[in-house]
Amino acid sequence: MTQDPLVIFTPTGKRGRFPVGTPVLTAARQLGVDLDSVCGGRGICSKCQVSPSFGQFPKHGLTVSEGALSGWNAVEQRYDEKRGLKPGRRLGCQAQVLGDIVIDVPPESQVHRQVVRKEAALRAMEMDPATRLVMVDVAEPDMHEPTGDFERLARALSDQWGIAEVAIDLPVLTRLQPALRQGEWRVTLALHQPRDGAPHRVTAVWPGFFEGPLLGLAIDLGSTTIAAHLTDLATGEVVASAGAMNPQIRFGEDLMSRVSYAMMNPGGDAEMTAAVRGALATLAAGLAEESNTDQGRIVEAVVVCNPVMHHLLLGIDPVELGQAPFALATSSAMELAASDLGLTGLAPGARVYLLPCIAGHVGADAAAVALSEDPGASEDLVLIVDVGTNAEILLGNRERVLACSSPTGPAFEGAQISSGQRAAPGAIERVRIDPVTREPRFRVIGCELWSDEEGFAEATAATGVTGICGSGIIEAVAEMRMAGLLDASGLIGGADRTGTPRSVPEGRTHAYLLHDASTEGGARITVTQGDIRAIQLAKSALYAGARLLMDEIGTDTVDRVVLAGAFGAHISPLHAMVLGMIPDVPLDKVTSAGNAAGTGARIALCSRSARAKIEREVQRITKVETAIEPRFQEHFVAANAIPHATAPFALLRAAAPLPDLSFNSHGDADGGRRRRRRTG
Amino acid sequence: MTQDPLVIFTPTGKRGRFPVGTPVLTAARQLGVDLDSVCGGRGICSKCQVSPSFGQFPKHGLTVSEGALSGWNAVEQRYDEKRGLKPGRRLGCQAQVLGDIVIDVPPESQVHRQVVRKEAALRAMEMDPATRLVMVDVAEPDMHEPTGDFERLARALSDQWGIAEVAIDLPVLTRLQPALRQGEWRVTLALHQPRDGAPHRVTAVWPGFFEGPLLGLAIDLGSTTIAAHLTDLATGEVVASAGAMNPQIRFGEDLMSRVSYAMMNPGGDAEMTAAVRGALATLAAGLAEESNTDQGRIVEAVVVCNPVMHHLLLGIDPVELGQAPFALATSSAMELAASDLGLTGLAPGARVYLLPCIAGHVGADAAAVALSEDPGASEDLVLIVDVGTNAEILLGNRERVLACSSPTGPAFEGAQISSGQRAAPGAIERVRIDPVTREPRFRVIGCELWSDEEGFAEATAATGVTGICGSGIIEAVAEMRMAGLLDASGLIGGADRTGTPRSVPEGRTHAYLLHDASTEGGARITVTQGDIRAIQLAKSALYAGARLLMDEIGTDTVDRVVLAGAFGAHISPLHAMVLGMIPDVPLDKVTSAGNAAGTGARIALCSRSARAKIEREVQRITKVETAIEPRFQEHFVAANAIPHATAPFALLRAAAPLPDLSFNSHGDADGGRRRRRRTG
Repeated sequence: MTQDPLVIFTPTGKRGRFPVGTPVLTAARQLGVDLDSVCGGRGICSKCQVSPSFGQFPKHGLTVSEGALSGWNAVEQRYDEKRGLKPGRRLGCQAQVLGDIVIDVPPESQVHRQVVRKEAALRAMEMDPATRLVMVDVAEPDMHEPTGDFERLARALSDQWGIAEVAIDLPVLTRLQPALRQGEWRVTLALHQPRDGAPHRVTAVWPGFFEGPLLGLAIDLGSTTIAAHLTDLATGEVVASAGAMNPQIRFGEDLMSRVSYAMMNPGGDAEMTAAVRGALATLAAGLAEESNTDQGRIVEAVVVCNPVMHHLLLGIDPVELGQAPFALATSSAMELAASDLGLTGLAPGARVYLLPCIAGHVGADAAAVALSEDPGASEDLVLIVDVGTNAEILLGNRERVLACSSPTGPAFEGAQISSGQRAAPGAIERVRIDPVTREPRFRVIGCELWSDEEGFAEATAATGVTGICGSGIIEAVAEMRMAGLLDASGLIGGADRTGTPRSVPEGRTHAYLLHDASTEGGARITVTQGDIRAIQLAKSALYAGARLLMDEIGTDTVDRVVLAGAFGAHISPLHAMVLGMIPDVPLDKVTSAGNAAGTGARIALCSRSARAKIEREVQRITKVETAIEPRFQEHFVAANAIPHATAPFALLRAAAPLPDLSFNSHGDADGGRRRRRRTG
Repeated sequence: MTQDPLVIFTPTGKRGRFPVGTPVLTAARQLGVDLDSVCGGRGICSKCQVSPSFGQFPKHGLTVSEGALSGWNAVEQRYDEKRGLKPGRRLGCQAQVLGDIVIDVPPESQVHRQVVRKEAALRAMEMDPATRLVMVDVAEPDMHEPTGDFERLARALSDQWGIAEVAIDLPVLTRLQPALRQGEWRVTLALHQPRDGAPHRVTAVWPGFFEGPLLGLAIDLGSTTIAAHLTDLATGEVVASAGAMNPQIRFGEDLMSRVSYAMMNPGGDAEMTAAVRGALATLAAGLAEESNTDQGRIVEAVVVCNPVMHHLLLGIDPVELGQAPFALATSSAMELAASDLGLTGLAPGARVYLLPCIAGHVGADAAAVALSEDPGASEDLVLIVDVGTNAEILLGNRERVLACSSPTGPAFEGAQISSGQRAAPGAIERVRIDPVTREPRFRVIGCELWSDEEGFAEATAATGVTGICGSGIIEAVAEMRMAGLLDASGLIGGADRTGTPRSVPEGRTHAYLLHDASTEGGARITVTQGDIRAIQLAKSALYAGARLLMDEIGTDTVDRVVLAGAFGAHISPLHAMVLGMIPDVPLDKVTSAGNAAGTGARIALCSRSARAKIEREVQRITKVETAIEPRFQEHFVAANAIPHATAPFALLRAAAPLPDLSFNSHGDADGGRRRRRRTG
């Protein structure tokens, strides 16, 4: 008795015997092999391409003959003529099993393919999109057996795809009838299933066969800026990115001023909700236009944001987030219709997923950072700092993860700094000060040259030198400290102590002249004593938050530090450490994760299992509330010194000069600060 | 060893033993006895009132002592002082079981109480509302264990009510935080559960304890008129009713003209959708105002309507319903957010239920009639006719139910009749013609007197006699037939044959002068030959539809006839039969069901099990499509005669004079009609 042919799929190794003549796609489905198909085996979509292997396979104890698969049929011939089939490829729905065979499913034919994240040291993520394309042939209406078009569609999904339960929202239902008739009873559906076993939902319909791709929006909704990435839901690739200012800025620069606006102005929350929803809709439309695609292909969006943005986007008054106990209206992940958020330009049934919030001050953006950086999977103790107007801080390893937020204020973004400006061409972003001459050199955004290099003046003539941005001020302050222009308490020395005319008096304090308009052109840019104080406040808050988490876990050291946030990507680890923004670790243990929140949004957009994972993870995260923790104040005060009043920062001191000097005896009024420094 | 006390609940007879001290409500819940409670046993809502019985109960083998329940406690004392506890009543959550006891649950304490329907011979229906009130005490937020307010609400529902899965729509979520704080962490929720075992959904929230009642809207959305009944969801009582013209009338009088409007005018369907949604919102607001209640208490609506109205309400282009094969976009029952239909004034999460459509021409209104009249439960074969611009016809018994619709046109509503008008004061609604003198008498809407009674002129002076409405024209034509003024073919005799000057010439035909303006005041009202033809067309369509169903079932007779529709309530069975609108049955077997579609809507509003039932039933109903059935034309032609060309109508002839005469020899041109009559 001869056995049915053995079919082995790689890379999974799944195997089974199938009768002669079984299409490869059918065999794959029966074995649960991840082989894509939109048209359901009709030879239209070409998604089910496979690579058969022939010859000896000692590992499998198999010899595959050339005749193990049926030859090309007319469908494959036509496909190859029209669109070209790669060498060695077959259409899984057309090629039939004739003998023992080994069949490789290439990554692009897998729904759950692994894709590499360009950020974060090329880590991989697995595609597991919630929405897929499915083509169906629907029975025509029969007057004698009257049923609705949707009911016949549901029957077709059951018969042709084994999908038992399907829902449809009204805006999609209204488009079903014309699509069915235009496609002559063949349509392609976008089917959304939030998790395995859940009912499916039709979120878009196209007449006939629609090739895709389906698109999604990963949105990082910040207090100041909104970034959106239009993403291919099959490959995970970003098709186009765009950013916009958050129009809520006109209601208040930071979160608490927006909460205040809502409290003081009846209907103020609704105004802010309308503003941010409008901005998202505009961004979506702009991205579609930029990438020359139809917004109707955008079937999903994922939004990450802090709790105040979260509430304002949902239309919930954020007033409770402005006062203890900082109660969220809801903390769970949310799955909504895009139209509920005024995103009506997308696919008619498009869905929006919001990551869970961790606490009243630690939002879905922090959850997204956790998803991207995965501290809960780290062998060593990692501190992740998402630097922004509000800093989200995560600390943990495989055993435990903690989270808090800390109100750093906008100084790190160049606001509240005398010569500060947003990161834009003309802004100083890199600073070096010669420790001997105490002369500065710098680079501005938009020019690769340092200011002491030839051609700098010409190269920056168009933009000028206009101010100093967040990373620039951090480097400037740290360089001043290393060059002996600034003491540990944060006092700027006068020219008599520093020996450089760039130490200029300013009232009862001093400033450091970074760029002299009169001799060098452009704006006069100084780092004032007030700037130093603003940076001290911000970095103290950041450090104190991190330190609070370290207390909670019972440690004085962390193994590594990840700087996240769009701004985090531009911070120099050495300078951040000199400032004492982060605890003392070896410099090579400080890395940047880029916009980790945005990356987390993109991961959640592409993967249902990632959504499920972060929903589980946030339950495990210990939330620490900085606002009411007395030790936060202690840590804050101790962190005021540069780099720190009590922590030794031994690793840092081995790597960078931190002159031990004090400018305090020269008449500065800050007696309290002096006392504290002396006890340190 | 003494046993725990035995508790027997009546009327169900459910029984069980419970430890001494068990509250009656707890015992009832554990036994699955239907005992209402909103506050969950906190002695606030008083919904759990019971009547304990004492003394000998030989039937149960029980003697109940006076001490079998605990005495009144402070909660009951206070409740009695404030609101008065009926004699013999106890609060089930306060009274504790001390000994063997028999406890009656009065109907008003049952959620699933039986209520009597005033319509349809006092049939009962069981309350089984999809929405109920539930009070919960929610934990306050804790900064150290941050969870959202909604998550703590869900926890409270699980702990206090055993409700495991609960969802909330955005518009309700936005109101949760202020309600929780205003109610000091106690809120009452409207909880919607479409069927047992389905997840619950919070559709409204009130601070503290909210007594209700919850209200629902039963809406009968007709082509011409819209009727809405504001209904108490606990008792099923109609609190207020209102009607309005369907504003879509300006786009076309009948359904097909509205479909044409949508076809001819891009965006025309959206215009009609907006018009009808606006009308529903206005009706809801008006009903709330009229009954001096808050629209926010309206948590549900049920809509019944024909398929074209169904699609236009949902925002679906009805064009497919205007041409074979009359495909519905969807035929299933629908459960939607009221806000999806623009009903935004109701409770923030209010739900709308649409009954299933039976076929492209037989809508949710016919399903509602089936729900109200339940032909599938009838022992005898019942024909149900819902008379309107389009007639819905149901025929069936326990074995089988069939349905069709028939395009009767608007003649039965007084339209397309020379002196026709809508049913309004001044319209003739009753007509009698003396078979000897052939003089008419009539009654008009708004006056109880007949026109030959003393004081009629004075009583109708205000309104005048303005025209003839639907029931009036039916009676007029039937009376003319019985009085020998009209022959079986539908010809009106001239004065030379009828011997009355009221037979007046009109062109080449004759008319019957019902009301002479010159001698009697008011309008000149005649029944013209054209009017007779219009009525013949309408009644032939109706009869042919019924006859088609009888063919399908293989019968020449039905056992009884139910006239439904607001207009059906006004039709005289005798006159309807003389006209041949309905098949020949004993006159006492013709009954009126009033507005059965509206009643069906109300039943569905009050009962989830009724919804489930009709969803099952419509699957069982055999749909007959009149538009393409060749026999329909045959039946239509044969039914043109009055009462019928071939059917004997023997029962009718025994009850009413139907003079055998013909006015055809006197020069009427209708030769074809003459031939057919003679063969009859």
